[in-house]
Amino acid sequence: MTSLTAAKASQTPRVSDREMANAIRALAMDSVQRANSGHPGMPMGMADVATVLFNRFIKLDPSRPDWPDRDRFVLSAGHGSMLQYAIHFLLGYADMPVEELKRFRQLGSHTPGHPEYGHTLGVETTTGPLGQGIATAVGMALAERMLAARFGPELVDHYTYVIAGDGCLQEGISHEAIDLAGHLRLGRLIVLWDDNRISIDGPTRLSTSMNQLARFAAAGWHVQEVDGHDPEAVAAAIERARAEERPSLIACHTTIGKGAPNLEGSEKTHGAPLGEAEIAATRENIGWSHPPFEVPDEIIGAWREASARGRAAREAWEARLAASPQADAFRRAVSGEIPEEVFEALRAFRAEQSEKAPRVATRKASEMTLAVINGATELTVGGSADLTHSNLTLTNGLGVVQPGDYGGRYIHYGIREHGMAAAMNGLALHGGFVPYGGTFLCFADYARGAIRLSALMGQRVIYVLTHDSIGLGEDGPTHQPIEHLAMLRATPNLNVFRPADIIETAECWELALRSRNHPSVLVLSRQNLPTLRTASDSLPSARGAYVLREADGRRDVTLLATGSEVEIAVAAAELLKAQHGLNAAVVSMPCWELFEEQDEDYQRSVLGTAPRIAVEAAARLGWDRWIAGNGDFVGMNGFGASAPAGDLYRHFGITAEAVAERALAFAGTAGGQARNNN
Amino acid sequence: MTSLTAAKASQTPRVSDREMANAIRALAMDSVQRANSGHPGMPMGMADVATVLFNRFIKLDPSRPDWPDRDRFVLSAGHGSMLQYAIHFLLGYADMPVEELKRFRQLGSHTPGHPEYGHTLGVETTTGPLGQGIATAVGMALAERMLAARFGPELVDHYTYVIAGDGCLQEGISHEAIDLAGHLRLGRLIVLWDDNRISIDGPTRLSTSMNQLARFAAAGWHVQEVDGHDPEAVAAAIERARAEERPSLIACHTTIGKGAPNLEGSEKTHGAPLGEAEIAATRENIGWSHPPFEVPDEIIGAWREASARGRAAREAWEARLAASPQADAFRRAVSGEIPEEVFEALRAFRAEQSEKAPRVATRKASEMTLAVINGATELTVGGSADLTHSNLTLTNGLGVVQPGDYGGRYIHYGIREHGMAAAMNGLALHGGFVPYGGTFLCFADYARGAIRLSALMGQRVIYVLTHDSIGLGEDGPTHQPIEHLAMLRATPNLNVFRPADIIETAECWELALRSRNHPSVLVLSRQNLPTLRTASDSLPSARGAYVLREADGRRDVTLLATGSEVEIAVAAAELLKAQHGLNAAVVSMPCWELFEEQDEDYQRSVLGTAPRIAVEAAARLGWDRWIAGNGDFVGMNGFGASAPAGDLYRHFGITAEAVAERALAFAGTAGGQARNNN
Repeated sequence: MTSLTAAKASQTPRVSDREMANAIRALAMDSVQRANSGHPGMPMGMADVATVLFNRFIKLDPSRPDWPDRDRFVLSAGHGSMLQYAIHFLLGYADMPVEELKRFRQLGSHTPGHPEYGHTLGVETTTGPLGQGIATAVGMALAERMLAARFGPELVDHYTYVIAGDGCLQEGISHEAIDLAGHLRLGRLIVLWDDNRISIDGPTRLSTSMNQLARFAAAGWHVQEVDGHDPEAVAAAIERARAEERPSLIACHTTIGKGAPNLEGSEKTHGAPLGEAEIAATRENIGWSHPPFEVPDEIIGAWREASARGRAAREAWEARLAASPQADAFRRAVSGEIPEEVFEALRAFRAEQSEKAPRVATRKASEMTLAVINGATELTVGGSADLTHSNLTLTNGLGVVQPGDYGGRYIHYGIREHGMAAAMNGLALHGGFVPYGGTFLCFADYARGAIRLSALMGQRVIYVLTHDSIGLGEDGPTHQPIEHLAMLRATPNLNVFRPADIIETAECWELALRSRNHPSVLVLSRQNLPTLRTASDSLPSARGAYVLREADGRRDVTLLATGSEVEIAVAAAELLKAQHGLNAAVVSMPCWELFEEQDEDYQRSVLGTAPRIAVEAAARLGWDRWIAGNGDFVGMNGFGASAPAGDLYRHFGITAEAVAERALAFAGTAGGQARNNN
Repeated sequence: MTSLTAAKASQTPRVSDREMANAIRALAMDSVQRANSGHPGMPMGMADVATVLFNRFIKLDPSRPDWPDRDRFVLSAGHGSMLQYAIHFLLGYADMPVEELKRFRQLGSHTPGHPEYGHTLGVETTTGPLGQGIATAVGMALAERMLAARFGPELVDHYTYVIAGDGCLQEGISHEAIDLAGHLRLGRLIVLWDDNRISIDGPTRLSTSMNQLARFAAAGWHVQEVDGHDPEAVAAAIERARAEERPSLIACHTTIGKGAPNLEGSEKTHGAPLGEAEIAATRENIGWSHPPFEVPDEIIGAWREASARGRAAREAWEARLAASPQADAFRRAVSGEIPEEVFEALRAFRAEQSEKAPRVATRKASEMTLAVINGATELTVGGSADLTHSNLTLTNGLGVVQPGDYGGRYIHYGIREHGMAAAMNGLALHGGFVPYGGTFLCFADYARGAIRLSALMGQRVIYVLTHDSIGLGEDGPTHQPIEHLAMLRATPNLNVFRPADIIETAECWELALRSRNHPSVLVLSRQNLPTLRTASDSLPSARGAYVLREADGRRDVTLLATGSEVEIAVAAAELLKAQHGLNAAVVSMPCWELFEEQDEDYQRSVLGTAPRIAVEAAARLGWDRWIAGNGDFVGMNGFGASAPAGDLYRHFGITAEAVAERALAFAGTAGGQARNNN
């Protein structure tokens, strides 16, 4: 926890802070110019602040970018990516030779337009959509405190630093994030605000009169303001922030594009190259005579001292870990491996429930499953956006995370879906935890920005989205999801599970836990549903779709359904047999994404060649993939309404009778002949 | 602008404020009990505040709920809908007899679970998703100032009152809303915060430590706090707020479920019926001896005095309007009718561009179209979430709306997509304006909650969403939409336009302006596109899809595309002809929703019976509706990447060659024979 300032101060600096910062400025303006695309203004404006942060404070070892006790750095203003890439080059990250700076924003480079997690070493989270970085950092800072509560300061003792811009602080997600961070007293979170009074349209006074310092103070933060071009002032502010028990905001007064003599202070430097003439003038102005992409050895050497200090800190930490009685437990936690006991317990649970065959809502089935999971591993961390007793996400004995007391495993995220989702991304990225969190499916809308980043980053974040259709009843159309399944299914790299009963629910939870590189969404009913399945060690849900009830004889029709509508499909199949002698198979499709991954033979065996009627209490969009021009869809054609659930299913015609009628239209007279439904 | 307090004070009140408020309490608890569903806690807690607000201040005439100069009331905490329904019954709204209270939350009643615009008289906006009400109210309060700037206080002089709960203030959207309102000094906006320190999970201290008064003050608001059960204190606070030039927050300290002796102050009163025993105890406790749904005539009479005052105010206003030289102009503005000159100018513009056939991005085409529209009508009000020069939403001469100066027609919404969308809902709902606003298509994510409400309320809000695919290039996957078209197309009642060139862009703008009961999304390219169409008075885009290039002979294959990929489809068709002798038709599909409304004959004539290859630089989800089991899709299978646009199209295989190859696979060998692609 001691600062690294002492090490710096004891030397006679051969290279000034300003020279070290100018290396960032030159690399940023030259890379953007070469790419003919990018954002030079922010890296040039924040170069002085970043130089102080990285050389006097941050604890990083570029040779081990995944060292668990490293400080986390989040460039929330992700458009300023050249700031981070320039620093990574100067610090000596293995994937950031100068050639990569020359390939800024080119296909396959390590220097994409915005920092991308998993793409570039040392990038802790993907940023670019504004406000996500600061909100994700809240999750990281919380994870640090939670892991420290478990393993102590010998093993877990680091800071989370954020550079944020005006955009980050204007976005609504920042409100949710800073309220949560202030409430939980995340003192290891330090936000450096690039307070340059410029946004894309021009001066920020075009659109805001917010007193940000007062705003953060109102949220329980420690606040300071400094001249962002005065290294000693910045260093002193960071020192004070580190000593604080509250999260800290440091407003750094800067000039965007600092150093460009004709353009600095203008929004023109924000998102476009400076141009060759202004770049030449800037070289003159800042006294940087070196050609593009050349940095004198002594300046690089000065930056590498920070890397060397980080390496020493990492080695000391590794020695502490080796000597720690908690070493194995710590390694297990940060590995993120779910212990086999969890899956054994889930197998037993499914066998038991298969016997009992309860009639419960899948949200209740999820709660019962979570009790098993949370009892068998300490990795899971639950929460809800103020719908705990509706989402059923809190199981016995989890303990609640509270301000200053981080030993619990349940987080009251407040009425903050977006902040919750981003914080879960941060918890997952930090390591040591498998986060899950609940809200209503409809309010996935509010969390969209962060859900997309879970998917883009391939993080194991589990969304528990209950009240998943008109089946929620009286709350009405504002609370009844229609388009949300399509929205989530269209999102790449996201597994969307809509289980039909308690057995599928337990299977889908297992699949979500096993998905190391995907977030998962569990879409769950408010209303009770029968147990339709028996337990099976082969985990049929793992194939995404499967034949739940084969037809009694050659198939005349195949009924496709998910979740609460599988019950309706089964009833329709029985009705078709009893009243019309038609053979209907019922296919449950809890996860389209997994079904798409199956081989064609399996897909054909499930879908069959008979006409197909799909039923889901949601929008049709997407279902035609499975209907494939020979069948129809029974579902929602518009928004829902406020009424008891049973009334709504009848009103909107999502009933066994309606499904049977559509099946008859396609299979009843023509014996399964293809008919185009367009 | 004078308060109505004087009228009240001059009478000897036969009925006390408390009795008037208790009528709300009784109706709320009894209706929820009868529905066995709903939220009694908030109406009971805020009954005293609402009684003061509606009886001493609000200017409403229940017999003319759409009177333009009425005050606007927004129940942002929409779950407390029984507060509003009870008040509407007491004030005598025609659609709110006591029978409707008895049908609370039943199918087809005027008393749905949450207030729904267009469903219940006097409900100014749909609420329920938290934070939307307060953010929509900002748009209403802005519309009032803007309309007043045009027509003066004789015709436009009203307040916007909001009742908001803790949830509204925790949601991120509230930050965007209050920053914008404070900045624009919307002094006619008064928010009454139900500060009851309870949310669904329990005490708000579980999840927040925010000092809301300090927070609102930081945003430039006037702030007060009062005992929400002291009518005189509430009245004095509202008086002060009305006199303020800043927007006002009044924190009303209340007890949730006030009056229920065993449950008041507990989250148990929030979202469930009190139960018969507690209801009986409450009757006893508050001295309300009347049976359920019975309110003594003298209490109803006291409430109706407020209605009578509102009626008088409305009649006086109508007299002023009749005498005003601006009467016709005012009526035209609030009618929302787009003058025919706009469409004539657009027709001329299309003819002219048809001649010139420019190669421009559709975002640029949109700007050129907007110059025509904005020049021909004063109704349109533009804006952007800090991407003005990227979205190209600002045309010459609009003038910028500024704090205290509301004569302009362009709003710098700041980096606040959600707040912008909600404010546009408010502008549209208020009347007098047709709002449009821009951001990147990818950041529709941030505005999802409010876009959904535009659709649910059927408001003519126009979203200008540019940078609509990997075609945006170097900014990379965080900025490249993939699933967004599917998300928007799956949303009921929303028209999603993706024009292919300048002619289609101008057509789609016309269609958006003509859509009185739908919001529209214009999905526009960053990259330049050729003019593919000639102008046509029949407005082919109005049918949603049409044959852009018929095949040269009997169709072997039909190529379906939208937006920037229509150019690729046209090139593929030429390539198929030249290299393989295949006859390919090209269908442009700028608006699926309008195409779905066409009759089957038209749809069949466009889609044909040959195999179909769809091409769109986005997710496949939804396209199988049009492929219908006989064809394939060329598009994105995952997230994008950071590189120049041309490199990305090649990298992801979205090229004329790739389209031709898929076409050959389906049409080249089998002569158009059906082949199932599952």
